[in-house]
Amino acid sequence: MMEVSGKKLKQYIEELEQLEERRFQIIEETKEVLADAKGEGFDIKIIKKVLQIRRMKPEQFSEQEALLQTYIDALLDTD
Amino acid sequence: MMEVSGKKLKQYIEELEQLEERRFQIIEETKEVLADAKGEGFDIKIIKKVLQIRRMKPEQFSEQEALLQTYIDALLDTD
Amino acid sequence: MMEVSGKKLKQYIEELEQLEERRFQIIEETKEVLADAKGEGFDIKIIKKVLQIRRMKPEQFSEQEALLQTYIDALLDTD
Amino acid sequence: MMEVSGKKLKQYIEELEQLEERRFQIIEETKEVLADAKGEGFDIKIIKKVLQIRRMKPEQFSEQEALLQTYIDALLDTD
Repeated sequence: MMEVSGKKLKQYIEELEQLEERRFQIIEETKEVLADAKGEGFDIKIIKKVLQIRRMKPEQFSEQEALLQTYIDALLDTD
Repeated sequence: MMEVSGKKLKQYIEELEQLEERRFQIIEETKEVLADAKGEGFDIKIIKKVLQIRRMKPEQFSEQEALLQTYIDALLDTD
Repeated sequence: MMEVSGKKLKQYIEELEQLEERRFQIIEETKEVLADAKGEGFDIKIIKKVLQIRRMKPEQFSEQEALLQTYIDALLDTD
Repeated sequence: MMEVSGKKLKQYIEELEQLEERRFQIIEETKEVLADAKGEGFDIKIIKKVLQIRRMKPEQFSEQEALLQTYIDALLDTD
């Protein structure tokens, strides 16, 4: 069996546990913001779609919407 | 905008919908088997571990367990 | 430690392994259909959006699109 | 269509984008730590198992291991 440096391993483990802890905090904070938004009457599913769109470049979004419409039309013509 | 063959697109869409349908059926059947097993007193988490282990070759599992023990011991020596 | 019926456990394990096997086959078939569609020039991301839309009732989709537009307009008015 | 406060919506959207940004940073940092550990010869899969075990109470882990062994033995007795 290989020689394992417990000191290095411990350091990695602890770094990963701190990152995990921070990740859980962010998940909790996100849930709270979403619950707040829902409480104010916003639709969470639509908010997530807005976030998705804002991540894209405007021309990327237009191209995607145009292609989606092309596919939907092509299907309707076939039905 | 590109020319789109509605006929081909429809074929792909319908194949994907049938695959999705079959996938959902399998998910449902799996839930039922797990619920049955739970009803008989089995621990689902442990059953999943058994499935994981059975997917491995025996020597692969032993190696993994040995390495895990090595890491745990190295950490204990450092604490 | 509880008494465990190996026979029952084996039956559950084997049922779950068969379901898993079938699930993997479906995942493989799906990948093949998507690769085929891509080879024919279709955009997989858009195909997945079409599938999503077809899962919804038409009025559900229109409402969702209208609300999305309302949110986007509200954001634009604020910027 | 409902009245939507663009100001409130914008505030939620921006909070969510900041949380998402922080989440991506953590994912990047985690990848770096794992790559470092791998570079030092550590097995990432085993490190993840160590993290899983450390999340459990010691008695919880022993119970789980004992039950796993019981299930494996029961299966072996049946084969």
